[in-house]
Amino acid sequence: MTQFSGISAVLLNCSLVHDSKDSHTRKLLNRVRGIMTTEGVDVELIHMLDHQIGFGMVPDTTALGDDTDDWPGIQAKIMAADILVIGTPIWLGVKSSLATLAIERMYANSGDRNEHGQYLYYGKTGGCVVTGNEDGVKACSMEVLYAMSHIGYVVPPQADCGWLGEVGPGPSYGDVVEGEDVPAGYDSDFTNKNTTIMSWNLMHTAKMLRDGGGFPVGGNVADSWRDYTNAEQQDPDAD
Amino acid sequence: MTQFSGISAVLLNCSLVHDSKDSHTRKLLNRVRGIMTTEGVDVELIHMLDHQIGFGMVPDTTALGDDTDDWPGIQAKIMAADILVIGTPIWLGVKSSLATLAIERMYANSGDRNEHGQYLYYGKTGGCVVTGNEDGVKACSMEVLYAMSHIGYVVPPQADCGWLGEVGPGPSYGDVVEGEDVPAGYDSDFTNKNTTIMSWNLMHTAKMLRDGGGFPVGGNVADSWRDYTNAEQQDPDAD
Amino acid sequence: MTQFSGISAVLLNCSLVHDSKDSHTRKLLNRVRGIMTTEGVDVELIHMLDHQIGFGMVPDTTALGDDTDDWPGIQAKIMAADILVIGTPIWLGVKSSLATLAIERMYANSGDRNEHGQYLYYGKTGGCVVTGNEDGVKACSMEVLYAMSHIGYVVPPQADCGWLGEVGPGPSYGDVVEGEDVPAGYDSDFTNKNTTIMSWNLMHTAKMLRDGGGFPVGGNVADSWRDYTNAEQQDPDAD
Amino acid sequence: MTQFSGISAVLLNCSLVHDSKDSHTRKLLNRVRGIMTTEGVDVELIHMLDHQIGFGMVPDTTALGDDTDDWPGIQAKIMAADILVIGTPIWLGVKSSLATLAIERMYANSGDRNEHGQYLYYGKTGGCVVTGNEDGVKACSMEVLYAMSHIGYVVPPQADCGWLGEVGPGPSYGDVVEGEDVPAGYDSDFTNKNTTIMSWNLMHTAKMLRDGGGFPVGGNVADSWRDYTNAEQQDPDAD
Repeated sequence: MTQFSGISAVLLNCSLVHDSKDSHTRKLLNRVRGIMTTEGVDVELIHMLDHQIGFGMVPDTTALGDDTDDWPGIQAKIMAADILVIGTPIWLGVKSSLATLAIERMYANSGDRNEHGQYLYYGKTGGCVVTGNEDGVKACSMEVLYAMSHIGYVVPPQADCGWLGEVGPGPSYGDVVEGEDVPAGYDSDFTNKNTTIMSWNLMHTAKMLRDGGGFPVGGNVADSWRDYTNAEQQDPDAD
Repeated sequence: MTQFSGISAVLLNCSLVHDSKDSHTRKLLNRVRGIMTTEGVDVELIHMLDHQIGFGMVPDTTALGDDTDDWPGIQAKIMAADILVIGTPIWLGVKSSLATLAIERMYANSGDRNEHGQYLYYGKTGGCVVTGNEDGVKACSMEVLYAMSHIGYVVPPQADCGWLGEVGPGPSYGDVVEGEDVPAGYDSDFTNKNTTIMSWNLMHTAKMLRDGGGFPVGGNVADSWRDYTNAEQQDPDAD
Repeated sequence: MTQFSGISAVLLNCSLVHDSKDSHTRKLLNRVRGIMTTEGVDVELIHMLDHQIGFGMVPDTTALGDDTDDWPGIQAKIMAADILVIGTPIWLGVKSSLATLAIERMYANSGDRNEHGQYLYYGKTGGCVVTGNEDGVKACSMEVLYAMSHIGYVVPPQADCGWLGEVGPGPSYGDVVEGEDVPAGYDSDFTNKNTTIMSWNLMHTAKMLRDGGGFPVGGNVADSWRDYTNAEQQDPDAD
Repeated sequence: MTQFSGISAVLLNCSLVHDSKDSHTRKLLNRVRGIMTTEGVDVELIHMLDHQIGFGMVPDTTALGDDTDDWPGIQAKIMAADILVIGTPIWLGVKSSLATLAIERMYANSGDRNEHGQYLYYGKTGGCVVTGNEDGVKACSMEVLYAMSHIGYVVPPQADCGWLGEVGPGPSYGDVVEGEDVPAGYDSDFTNKNTTIMSWNLMHTAKMLRDGGGFPVGGNVADSWRDYTNAEQQDPDAD
């Protein structure tokens, strides 16, 4: 029994690598999984490309004529979890098409409400893991974390982590490099420290939200914002 | 005495308009100020251009030879406040030079530690107010909120709000438009709802953090991350 | 016979709408197509979702085990065209997953060389069409145009155009709105002017490149940059 | 007499370092300067912080009450030059406040027209040099190049270059590192190759535009777009 027992997390790997075990992003997500599992969190790591995910701004793309759509099952797992970590590789400086797709599909459900009338993802917390050859951890994290916050997630301090190789082409995270004792990035103090801090901050925030019965209610429910002190009542031209 | 008594906020207006009363962004910040003040929060609205702020990645640019630098005084107010809201106009789709400058100056202090050894801004929460003619609220918010999270702020759900005119040139927020009953944007339900939700979410989060004695400590202190379950100990090649 | 005879263009619609005729982005792309066709350009409009496109950083994802991959056919059309216009809707402020996917797939071919030894897309020019409810034309264009430039396209002046509805939910481009004479956005002078300028600038640039036999060769070939005046020879510490 | 005689360039260093000779970004700009000067281009390197630049969306901020504003002199040099290269350091993943300021000030003049009635910066070409400790070359370039294109510059292929240190804190470009033969980054093939290619592509494009008497006129003049085949005339609902 640990302080984080009862907390659950989904780690969503949006790598473009078909076989999950070859994904570099997975290797860093594994370290997040290890920390959280050790601390008592119930973690599931999902590899997007193990699933058939449809395109479209609907909860289930079979409604648009697709033969199959595995997103509703993933969405159910995300909804059941306190924590969501999106893992993405970097291509041309930005997050992957699969990371964009995952966010689109979550967004397509975001109009729904939780039991308090808040947007669906209120009460949850999110983070981001990024790996790339040389450039773009912050650019990717910016887009991913903003999307999460926008639909209801709490973003803790230092909610992202990642690894980058030296500028220019080179090994990816976990690649075996001739003449090096450990695979690329495994011994990066910077990456290991940030990965640790992100993991702990997500667990702390999830526990805070869990202990408080979700994100506090009041003034943040779309149907009743006028019942609270609100913007419409305030003088924009005040001194 | 309200639930938010004892909470304090700084609203930092990074408008390029010299006379604060002419700033469109200020008008929307005023509504945030109104909500928070009504709810018992102690609010200070600062107009960056009322001050002489130096360029440079140091706490005080007089150390670089500037005759004067008003940033240390603003920094002290930011440090004393539970909440920071950065207000920015949009130019060419991105945040203003003054918003970028404010973030640079805050970042120049971010290596310092709070009393728990966490980065300096831990225990605080932040949001973003954006106004523009036509395009860019989300792009600006993304950069501002990411910077805040990166240096220690908690970003609550829906932590940004803003107003945009129709595509193309046109009135700014609060401009008097011939033939219209109210100044541009004042009656936008969308903007008023989001401004209300952001304000409340910042107050709720500030209170949560205040009640908890800051952001929880453990695994997120740069000097002791190896004393906790950490990334270095985990197997990146786990199945 | 017009000044632009012999020029060809691909317009790639990365809408998430399955049936191309329902795509709002297509409606604005149609106007680009109309201008270019009238001026003698040979135009093909491709709807990404009419095709089965695989994920992965390879030219053909059947090599990764996919049953089918329609990208190689699209890639061949892009390679044969002087102009590429990427059309994308906006979701949560950013370009669509399909736009990201198209760029990834183009990037996966970018290491190849043209007949001069330059990167593959040298000699071509590109632009961007964006439609959305309320916010994000510039943010999407920024990513799309940067990616194009990075792999070899020339980006002309004002190479993007788009339409946005008023802030908040509302009609998309081309939606019939009760009480309005024309569908949303069809009569926007701003959008029509920018769409016209982008279309002409792409045609002018394509013709310039065509007339010059491609983008000038010299100093920009990866295999021979050291044979030209180059960075390595210059003193970074010069006064 | 070289093929690029008569071409001129401004390199604008938006470093936050007060003394220009200590700027890391300047060191890489110096290499661009060296290439261009060798090839016969007339180059001026301007260090923003050697000047007093005002904030505000006007051509001259003394009109807003500032005692002095050095921007008009810089603007005149930019207008006289065929090529503009903006150099910026990276802070928190984005371009510097001074880079943002330079773009704002250029944008404040962008409504003016050239002798053909085109926007002011038509006929010019632009690029971007970025240096940082670890992350963000592409994110910075994206914003800078987009702004340039938006106001009339042609963006050539591979119009940006930069250097990044390894992930995490570390030396900046040109720092002397104990145990290393050359200052950090000076021997990076990747950076040297890209810097060379960018420099040549800017010179080639400037010459193309110069030889053509500017960017071609037709369909891209704000006052006469309706006199050309235009978007308004096209059917958005075409099959």
